[in-house]
Amino acid sequence: MSGHIYVVGLGPGDECHRTPAADEALKRARHLVGYGPYLARAPLRDGQVAHASDNREELDRAHHALRLAAGGESVAVVSSGDAGVFAMAATLFEALETQGGEECGITIVPGVTAMTAAAARIGAPLGHDFCAISLSDNLKPWETVLQRVRAAAEADFVMAFYNPISKARPWELGKVLDLLREVRAPDTPVVFATAVSRPDERIAVVPLAEAEPGMADMRTVVIVGSSATRSVPRAGEGVWVYTPRHAEAASSA
Amino acid sequence: MSGHIYVVGLGPGDECHRTPAADEALKRARHLVGYGPYLARAPLRDGQVAHASDNREELDRAHHALRLAAGGESVAVVSSGDAGVFAMAATLFEALETQGGEECGITIVPGVTAMTAAAARIGAPLGHDFCAISLSDNLKPWETVLQRVRAAAEADFVMAFYNPISKARPWELGKVLDLLREVRAPDTPVVFATAVSRPDERIAVVPLAEAEPGMADMRTVVIVGSSATRSVPRAGEGVWVYTPRHAEAASSA
Repeated sequence: MSGHIYVVGLGPGDECHRTPAADEALKRARHLVGYGPYLARAPLRDGQVAHASDNREELDRAHHALRLAAGGESVAVVSSGDAGVFAMAATLFEALETQGGEECGITIVPGVTAMTAAAARIGAPLGHDFCAISLSDNLKPWETVLQRVRAAAEADFVMAFYNPISKARPWELGKVLDLLREVRAPDTPVVFATAVSRPDERIAVVPLAEAEPGMADMRTVVIVGSSATRSVPRAGEGVWVYTPRHAEAASSA
Repeated sequence: MSGHIYVVGLGPGDECHRTPAADEALKRARHLVGYGPYLARAPLRDGQVAHASDNREELDRAHHALRLAAGGESVAVVSSGDAGVFAMAATLFEALETQGGEECGITIVPGVTAMTAAAARIGAPLGHDFCAISLSDNLKPWETVLQRVRAAAEADFVMAFYNPISKARPWELGKVLDLLREVRAPDTPVVFATAVSRPDERIAVVPLAEAEPGMADMRTVVIVGSSATRSVPRAGEGVWVYTPRHAEAASSA
């Protein structure tokens, strides 16, 4: 007899952004597996067992879930945001390939990902073609990060950066911002959206010329506008940032 | 006295993927405004007025919502998927800039966007750096579309194509697939995900060499793998498609 694994996207933070499908999967599982702070956002019911692990132990966590399911258990592996965007779904399939376990059922439950939740708070910066790039070089060469940022900048994509900074990588975001300043105009809007929809949410918009790595922490998504992205005054105070649906000819890039 | 506009992402289709925040906004509004088939997915309550409009009338719809709000009304502008990804939020800010209306309150309510819902059905193809590109050239030069696809392919991004095809643009997706075949390997997995989470959902995975425009319609998101994207056997039948979290050196692009 074999169990079932749900990989569940919890949304960005507040439960008002967690879908009924995610709730249902959390209810069905007997074991909840995940990074501690994410697990703390999932309600724990009578008879359920929570298995918290550290942020850097994704692959171990996926193997653990597969072993539980191989023993007939139902397991929810929780991710913040969407389950498949720089999150546990890809890790689970990596573990599945090495460990085997094809017989257990797998359901990926999507969620509201950090960049669209961040975008909603500030307007519609992702209103036109965009890229999502993880700045972590734990798992890819730093040269690849730079190459992708440069390609995206030259083709005039809006960019959303996940994992922009960590204690082990304090210098990367600064290098990326320097690179962008070579290609994009100094007044390009840059959004630093931290802990979106959580009690300590912080949203800042600055021109690219003034963007600094210290504006981000581990819970920040950074969105850098394209050449078309605009700021407009907002009722009360501050600005809305949005990218129009139309684009000029490619030479504007 | 001024009203309020909610721009609401309904998620990909089934209400199990619609967030409580979206439900709450739909409840608070007196007027629901949107493309007919999306509006049909929002529950209509006593005293609410639905204003359906055609798919191509986004800007008129946004102006309509702003006029209603200027008269003190509460309005929900509905979008499929996320409100800010090739959807109504950007249109609303375009209308706001030309029409004025800064005094009305605006809330953007994010949702599960089509590409992450599609990805969840087939595994985790968006597990690493990716781009979202609208193939519509209604609002941007066709050359810009091709330039962005080429840049994304050369930098080895996974790609998600929104608006891949329409009656007015039956030839574009074919050109894009031809371009990709110049850069990506013939066995690169291509996912055609149509009407995700709706009763007539269809998901197909084919190698790039066999991908054809006829596999898509207006409700399809097309996801093209990077050089790292893999297919693995799935319990029962078919495959899972996922992109590992790690990347090789840039020369693999």
